[in-house]
Amino acid sequence: MSALDLKAYIKDVPDFPKPGIVFKDITPLLAAPAALAHAIDRLAELAAPLDPAAVIAIESRGFIFGAMVAQRCGLPLHLVRKRGKLPRATVSVRYALEYGFDHLEMHADAIERGGRYLIVDDVIATGGTAAATAELVERQGGIVAACAFVIELDFLNGRQSLQGRNVISLLHY
Amino acid sequence: MSALDLKAYIKDVPDFPKPGIVFKDITPLLAAPAALAHAIDRLAELAAPLDPAAVIAIESRGFIFGAMVAQRCGLPLHLVRKRGKLPRATVSVRYALEYGFDHLEMHADAIERGGRYLIVDDVIATGGTAAATAELVERQGGIVAACAFVIELDFLNGRQSLQGRNVISLLHY
Repeated sequence: MSALDLKAYIKDVPDFPKPGIVFKDITPLLAAPAALAHAIDRLAELAAPLDPAAVIAIESRGFIFGAMVAQRCGLPLHLVRKRGKLPRATVSVRYALEYGFDHLEMHADAIERGGRYLIVDDVIATGGTAAATAELVERQGGIVAACAFVIELDFLNGRQSLQGRNVISLLHY
Repeated sequence: MSALDLKAYIKDVPDFPKPGIVFKDITPLLAAPAALAHAIDRLAELAAPLDPAAVIAIESRGFIFGAMVAQRCGLPLHLVRKRGKLPRATVSVRYALEYGFDHLEMHADAIERGGRYLIVDDVIATGGTAAATAELVERQGGIVAACAFVIELDFLNGRQSLQGRNVISLLHY
């Protein structure tokens, strides 16, 4: 199955979440076990040479793909969540939204100094949440082995916000 | 590894999310690949005889376990999300919170009449979100094969709100 075939499982939804935006809906991929397994296998294959010690999954669609990649590779899974969701001591990063700011948090004991981490999310758009997550990892002495996505929206140039880090994307639009 | 051993990976966090509540933190389990694989294997083993055709994962920690169970069993994965998150036509259910109400949604094309569905979440507390999800499935003609959880808080009696449905829980508190 080629990358082209995987695109058959991504549905364009016009005007979501607001007029003029074409949303890439990954739910048909989730509902197709063979195609999904293929996508996870490819992410795992591309990430393996970068030797990550753990997966960092970004809330909330990133939880799905991050969990599957961690399971496929037998790696520990750590969560990056919106503010106030993680129960123990956290580290936090503020990042810019289109209007205003938001925060992402990670448990303070998740990252080991010198450890290599694979950040996983479903889509990279402007790269704001991925860059904020990379900053969280690096600020605690971790190394970003790679940031991995099912979909990269090339025209939004989110890769630029991840400068210097490896970026893995299965599908480009 | 026994159920007792899995409890070593669940951390009590007192006074979260508010004073007097003891939160069951599943993040140590996520960070322990062998223990996590064991938990997923056991959920899959318990669910298999009930012959589900797909997994329904409840946002957002349910995404993690639902994705892993779906991957382990080779089943399609469907999402139940908070209002406004799913991009295509949805069906919605309103359910009671401690104060007020909230809504859960599912894509309108997710459920097939007569299909058997395995609902997955991390924890069953009062059972409100699981019961609302079961209602969403059944209202569309689906059958709840089972509701599966890593943790059941027996003292909150959430199982009662799922009356008549199979309930699978790995750990009881």
